[in-house]
Amino acid sequence: MNQNPLILVTNDDGMYAGGMNALISVARKFGDVVAISSHEPMSGMSHAITIKVPLRVKLISKEPGLTRYVCNGTPVDGVKLVFNSLSERKPDLLLSGINHGSNSSSSVLYSGTMAAAMEGAVNHIPSIGFSLLSFDPDADFTASAIYVEEVSRHVLEKGLPDGICLNVNIPAIPSEQIKGIKICSQANGYWKEEFEKRTDPNGTEYYWLTGFFHNREPENGGTGTDEWALKNGFVSLVPINTDLTAYGALERMKSLESAQTGKHE
Amino acid sequence: MNQNPLILVTNDDGMYAGGMNALISVARKFGDVVAISSHEPMSGMSHAITIKVPLRVKLISKEPGLTRYVCNGTPVDGVKLVFNSLSERKPDLLLSGINHGSNSSSSVLYSGTMAAAMEGAVNHIPSIGFSLLSFDPDADFTASAIYVEEVSRHVLEKGLPDGICLNVNIPAIPSEQIKGIKICSQANGYWKEEFEKRTDPNGTEYYWLTGFFHNREPENGGTGTDEWALKNGFVSLVPINTDLTAYGALERMKSLESAQTGKHE
Repeated sequence: MNQNPLILVTNDDGMYAGGMNALISVARKFGDVVAISSHEPMSGMSHAITIKVPLRVKLISKEPGLTRYVCNGTPVDGVKLVFNSLSERKPDLLLSGINHGSNSSSSVLYSGTMAAAMEGAVNHIPSIGFSLLSFDPDADFTASAIYVEEVSRHVLEKGLPDGICLNVNIPAIPSEQIKGIKICSQANGYWKEEFEKRTDPNGTEYYWLTGFFHNREPENGGTGTDEWALKNGFVSLVPINTDLTAYGALERMKSLESAQTGKHE
Repeated sequence: MNQNPLILVTNDDGMYAGGMNALISVARKFGDVVAISSHEPMSGMSHAITIKVPLRVKLISKEPGLTRYVCNGTPVDGVKLVFNSLSERKPDLLLSGINHGSNSSSSVLYSGTMAAAMEGAVNHIPSIGFSLLSFDPDADFTASAIYVEEVSRHVLEKGLPDGICLNVNIPAIPSEQIKGIKICSQANGYWKEEFEKRTDPNGTEYYWLTGFFHNREPENGGTGTDEWALKNGFVSLVPINTDLTAYGALERMKSLESAQTGKHE
């Protein structure tokens, strides 16, 4: 039986985010879409899974070529639900996003959008996370749609290496100003937090997490990194590993192994 | 001024978990300890951060060489709070755990314990996550303590490469049966979920996340992987990268870049 490809679409901004609808529109060009997300935004949930409270799932719409579910879980919960319970078919492609805001550099570690893509990769489903560098809820996804379509088509046709997904970030500029796609490494950077301390009406202190991104790359912003590409008008594409082994550091750690083995044998 | 090293201790099982106390005991041998965790367990929270609710922090005890905080946030929130608000000194070492249960193979992606260590590494603090392969709340941490001390001393003296932390898993067998430490790669495996569907008293369906680990490595379990080492009586030590770039896949993706650049220039 010849079937349309099945595309799983998810995000971490919730089912009613503009970026979700933009992504579904592109995904429908390639096949049947099953979309799952939460009612509420789940930004910053990373690869969290829900084990302490029951998961609730609701089918909110079903029409030819598009089925939408909402659930109370994290992005990774939603992906697991589709893989294991909600769909009889294994998706041919997982698209996550389009995130409202950047997931470049170390932001990939905190991102629910990218965790959903990584969960796809762990399950050997070709998976891509897309983010637009704008937090505007009414952001214009016109340029994004062009690149989402191009990268998705490429991956649907050629696949991805097992265990690897893509982190695609799109600058918030008009499409005619975008210079194309750059294949990049993750820029070396971190979030410097500045917890804002307040006092509640009961006199108890509390904190809000705030912060700003600090790029450790050299002056030019680190040619070849996603941060550099985005600052220079490119769409950045970083292949992301779900095998976190730092292979380059294995040799350096060997002294610890030898010492120990010597002691015990 | 010559100061004792400052050791940040955290976990994802909560401040009152046996593994936390075992880890604090070892850490105190090396210097002053600041410990932070939650009241409730935070397993499976991965690298999640709290942005929708305020963070509450409580100093629960302070004695010479040991300060303990509890907070309502995730393990990564706790680490960020110490780095940015609760401690005037930058920690010299971050120890996370000892987790009740394995964090080998792809479990590293879901683990709050390992996310805390990764957050340390992103901030260039030498960081180690420890896990014992037993979910027993009254597990015996005697053997674990030996290896925690050995690995921690090594890292405190020699440091770790920037951006890299260690994932150390300890088999739940008596110390005299442990064969030593093996430097390993992350085994190729995934969690196959079997959502358990139930109906609540109001007639509405809900799911509990359950699952089992599936190892994709070859028959012998993949010599050189953490799963293999643990099954064969070794402590596994995997250096973990916070730069998730799949460098080996950059070349393969280049065709996407060329096509696009050709189109736009």
